[in-house]
Amino acid sequence: MSTQPPHNTLLIPGPIEFDDAVLQSMSHYAESHVAPGFVKVFGETLTLLRKLFQSTNPSAQPFLIAGSGTLGWDLVAANLIERGENALVLNTGYFGDSFGNCLTTYGAEVTHLRAPIGDRPAFEEIEAALKQKPYKLLTVTHVDTSTGVLNDIKRVAEVVRRVSPDTLVVVDGVCSVGSEEIAFDEWDLDAVVTASQKAIGCPPGLSIVYCSGRAIQRAQSRKTPPASYYASIANWLPIMQNYEACKPSYFATPPTQLVHALHTTLSQITSRPMSERFAIHTAASDKVKAAIAEIGLAQVAPKPECQAHGMTAMYLPDGLSPPDVLPGLLKRGVIFAAGLHKEIATKYIRFGHMGVSISDPSRNDIDKALSALKEALAEAKQAKGL
Amino acid sequence: MSTQPPHNTLLIPGPIEFDDAVLQSMSHYAESHVAPGFVKVFGETLTLLRKLFQSTNPSAQPFLIAGSGTLGWDLVAANLIERGENALVLNTGYFGDSFGNCLTTYGAEVTHLRAPIGDRPAFEEIEAALKQKPYKLLTVTHVDTSTGVLNDIKRVAEVVRRVSPDTLVVVDGVCSVGSEEIAFDEWDLDAVVTASQKAIGCPPGLSIVYCSGRAIQRAQSRKTPPASYYASIANWLPIMQNYEACKPSYFATPPTQLVHALHTTLSQITSRPMSERFAIHTAASDKVKAAIAEIGLAQVAPKPECQAHGMTAMYLPDGLSPPDVLPGLLKRGVIFAAGLHKEIATKYIRFGHMGVSISDPSRNDIDKALSALKEALAEAKQAKGL
Repeated sequence: MSTQPPHNTLLIPGPIEFDDAVLQSMSHYAESHVAPGFVKVFGETLTLLRKLFQSTNPSAQPFLIAGSGTLGWDLVAANLIERGENALVLNTGYFGDSFGNCLTTYGAEVTHLRAPIGDRPAFEEIEAALKQKPYKLLTVTHVDTSTGVLNDIKRVAEVVRRVSPDTLVVVDGVCSVGSEEIAFDEWDLDAVVTASQKAIGCPPGLSIVYCSGRAIQRAQSRKTPPASYYASIANWLPIMQNYEACKPSYFATPPTQLVHALHTTLSQITSRPMSERFAIHTAASDKVKAAIAEIGLAQVAPKPECQAHGMTAMYLPDGLSPPDVLPGLLKRGVIFAAGLHKEIATKYIRFGHMGVSISDPSRNDIDKALSALKEALAEAKQAKGL
Repeated sequence: MSTQPPHNTLLIPGPIEFDDAVLQSMSHYAESHVAPGFVKVFGETLTLLRKLFQSTNPSAQPFLIAGSGTLGWDLVAANLIERGENALVLNTGYFGDSFGNCLTTYGAEVTHLRAPIGDRPAFEEIEAALKQKPYKLLTVTHVDTSTGVLNDIKRVAEVVRRVSPDTLVVVDGVCSVGSEEIAFDEWDLDAVVTASQKAIGCPPGLSIVYCSGRAIQRAQSRKTPPASYYASIANWLPIMQNYEACKPSYFATPPTQLVHALHTTLSQITSRPMSERFAIHTAASDKVKAAIAEIGLAQVAPKPECQAHGMTAMYLPDGLSPPDVLPGLLKRGVIFAAGLHKEIATKYIRFGHMGVSISDPSRNDIDKALSALKEALAEAKQAKGL
């Protein structure tokens, strides 16, 4: 039984429902950010992040900083590329546009390789684009929260290494880390940017960036200084190294409570093989997608290989928009998200199925949501005379 | 009686002890960051920040962003000044150096007006410096956490307005907001940068920046685009305005739990006149400083008018360094901080007396700390044969 008060079940693509133990970690009493107890928890959390990314290469480096996931874009844009250098953005929607804007802010020359809504750039297109210019880095949104499109980052990295080996592979994993397989070392990735509040199952407020040795080296061999102070790899690197070595260190005060919560959820996640975690997310996703097809709804991402496993974006029947359906879901205790991609925002809704809602079957969240969806749709159609 | 488990009392200059209700707010169940309930809490929190700064001018604008206090420096440096423009840093120690580094990162030409350790720049020096160059902004550390030096920001602002009226007055209030008087509108300040974890009494993880209409106008009339994406006033301004108007809005996911905690503590703080809060901090500070003088310790800031009211930095007797004394305090259940200012770090310790440790006399934190200090010092002297 949950110790949390009764509340509507949050099934948006992040933030997600919290495990009781994770939430309880948030009410830890006040501690000094440089006292041995907290330093140990912070250090262990960094080590747990290595496990989360299935990474054992000691030259890889986790960063854990107070901020939203968005801050990770600044860390990439201010450290891994310099003014006037080229960046290729594999653009699958809202978050590709925004990451591109962030890179432009720091002076990068951004080329967008745009896929149609619900699809992803083809590998041949990526290869052709990489051959046209020397790109310092490429960004790819692993799961686009706005559309539920999944990119195959393993194959993207293979293409980059074959065609343009010096181009850094930067993954926006805000909506994928913890629900989609990532083998950081094996796939030869350079940076994964994520946040605490999606499949990792921690409250929002932590920016997490995982960098390869190659990325760190790129940051350290810049011709110009880092273009940010708070998001500077040079400022944070010694701090992260010291914390992981259990030595107190100070650049800015870490969000102690959130670090405790992240420690708790990562301990839970990594206590079982990561492959098992990905398998349960895939199984739940298959179930959701089959049920949605049965209801007669089309996914925003129609191709199975382009569908995320931690969320589903679905078009509503013609004549219905999110405000027709979301209140009916809420009445049944379920919260889905409205559309986010500007061009289709009024036509679709988003269902997040990640974390404890999947891994704790006693919650029954998914079945409850599917029933609520069926009923709310029927009700909305009736109300509209459809 | 506190509902928190027994623990050593945290009396460093931030983070500080938490009120039970504040800490309980951290374990709020999962919510959507754009749902009406949370939007209302966020909006009210912004309005409460206006009260905290004793500000009623509708053109002033609070910003509340996931991050450490340091992020506020980036927000100032990336929005309120442009590459090649001049900034004057009133430097009273560690945090003046760092704010200067942050401004330099974004291309500002920084002039430091340095005071001797434990002192602050004289008003005549500030006036003379302002007459030498056109400064786009001046920064002043209200309370320097590294030395306990208090700057008189009201008089600094008066000098600026008289001598160089277009220079923005930027206050680093990380260690002052909530314990030192600030009348934002009346004193004609332009930006106060602070964080959640000091005298505000909330866990760390929130960057708070309060801007004047003049500062916002400066940000909006830049010749060059903002130099940060995550710390961009242009990106956050509509979000803050929408939240305060109870309209959902999205740029980056806010740290929902921390916002609840801030809402709770600001509701408590602003439920009584701010003058009363400042008076109790002054009374507690007077008591601490008198007791320390009686023990025979000198303050790092010797002049009474330069002494902060939420913390005290004190030199240890000759022959003793922080590792000789802090364990003895810890044994007695009290946590002080070691020195932070590089040049004197081995010679002094810091005692934070802010928030519930002051406002809730039933805790008895201050008397406990003063007894522990007396005993730990005697013990350390004996051990060293002093």
